[in-house]
Amino acid sequence: MSHSIPVATTWVNGQLADHLPVTDRGLAYGDGLFETLRASQGRLPLLELHLKRLQRGCDVLRIPFRRQLIEEELGSAANAIGDGVVKLTLTRGSGQRGYAMPADAQPTRVIAVFPLPEYPADRRDGVQLYCCATRLSDQPLLAGIKHLNRLEQVLARSEWQDPAFAEGLVCDQQGRVVEGTMSNLFARVAGEWVTPDLSRCGVQGVMRDYLLARMLERGQRFTVGALTLDALHQADQVFCCNSLIGVWPVIRLGDRAWQVGSETRLLQSLAEQVYL
Amino acid sequence: MSHSIPVATTWVNGQLADHLPVTDRGLAYGDGLFETLRASQGRLPLLELHLKRLQRGCDVLRIPFRRQLIEEELGSAANAIGDGVVKLTLTRGSGQRGYAMPADAQPTRVIAVFPLPEYPADRRDGVQLYCCATRLSDQPLLAGIKHLNRLEQVLARSEWQDPAFAEGLVCDQQGRVVEGTMSNLFARVAGEWVTPDLSRCGVQGVMRDYLLARMLERGQRFTVGALTLDALHQADQVFCCNSLIGVWPVIRLGDRAWQVGSETRLLQSLAEQVYL
Repeated sequence: MSHSIPVATTWVNGQLADHLPVTDRGLAYGDGLFETLRASQGRLPLLELHLKRLQRGCDVLRIPFRRQLIEEELGSAANAIGDGVVKLTLTRGSGQRGYAMPADAQPTRVIAVFPLPEYPADRRDGVQLYCCATRLSDQPLLAGIKHLNRLEQVLARSEWQDPAFAEGLVCDQQGRVVEGTMSNLFARVAGEWVTPDLSRCGVQGVMRDYLLARMLERGQRFTVGALTLDALHQADQVFCCNSLIGVWPVIRLGDRAWQVGSETRLLQSLAEQVYL
Repeated sequence: MSHSIPVATTWVNGQLADHLPVTDRGLAYGDGLFETLRASQGRLPLLELHLKRLQRGCDVLRIPFRRQLIEEELGSAANAIGDGVVKLTLTRGSGQRGYAMPADAQPTRVIAVFPLPEYPADRRDGVQLYCCATRLSDQPLLAGIKHLNRLEQVLARSEWQDPAFAEGLVCDQQGRVVEGTMSNLFARVAGEWVTPDLSRCGVQGVMRDYLLARMLERGQRFTVGALTLDALHQADQVFCCNSLIGVWPVIRLGDRAWQVGSETRLLQSLAEQVYL
């Protein structure tokens, strides 16, 4: 483990490099995927879940998935940064003009390391959500995977600048709750955790998967299904999560205020233990 | 006008270059726009319509639009290629990790020139469409503009390899006809041209705008509205168009065959006159 590398160091296909060809289809069409991993003491605790999602994305987009190579390169990057963020962008590679997938495309791997984001420490005691007007479109073919077509998230995140809002709540075209701009959402409704179904839109977050697996192990009931704004307002505990932030309890959305409940604290501590 | 430059020559921000920084948000999120123009004898006949669409896209994405600079650079590229294709990719530029639009981002301009695509000459006498299963998602915020989030088109175009199909027909989530994977569609239903409304999905093609303007001038009735698959089957003339191919009459879709009508030939000749 070493902290001597400058941030943000980047590698392209395993070589130190900070540029890539303008013919890359990641640029042309967002034709690729990404993963953002938290490195802790040179390790990547949720690597398996990230690789599973990446594999699903590669299957959907029909991009060859060189698991072992990617695992090695992510491991080296984590080792180089120690504690920080490792981001992988995997594109279909370069191609001629036109949407058709080139038969001979060589996927491009871009790996970058960053310091951990410096979020205010009090966010673990509760955050306020901004209610975004941007709605996600229904696209079952692309739902769940972490592809590079992220203009909806860019537009949603651009709706507020006030740092009082730590995250934005995003709904689908029917006005149902889906997720945060960069996180997944859980709400405890009538004594049971609910997290929105992501089969039509949204990103299936790695921390969401991790927490659902812990709930399963503990025999805790939960629902992956529709979550209306009404149901969210009726919830007695709400939190958002991702693999960098862990769990942020939600304490305000518009006029609705929440206390941080013990169930949320428990899940938060499970999320934090990942990186100890 | 000169033909001495190699294809594909590329410029990044006005300088000959074939790479761009891996931190570009065009790569990270598809956070940008593109235009594909046909150059004819060093000129760009539909430049104004392309710039209008680009301006709309920049307004939607809040990317600064340096019209004069872009116009100059496109003009130089057209002059260099003579007859060919000039592609502009305009991204928000480089940024830190995260969806928030950087306040100080400097947009990236990538211009590339290509030879004209070598489509079989008989396509102007009629093409067969493949009926794609991939459906476009409803996203009114992004509909019409030519942004870089093009995975739906990539997936739709990947559905067929048989060159007997020149283009694919794409519908929305409700099964209404929207467009081709790379072109717009017109159908003559009950004696009147109909082209799908693009306010919820689809790309507002420059050749579509050009032909609609010609119809207006000629006092020809047309409808921009819903086009069901049933109505398409009832049409007596169908064509697809874009600024590179001009007008391709559609002569087959599944079991339905069409003749090439005189109205289609007229519009085709108007499209071809653009580049004379």
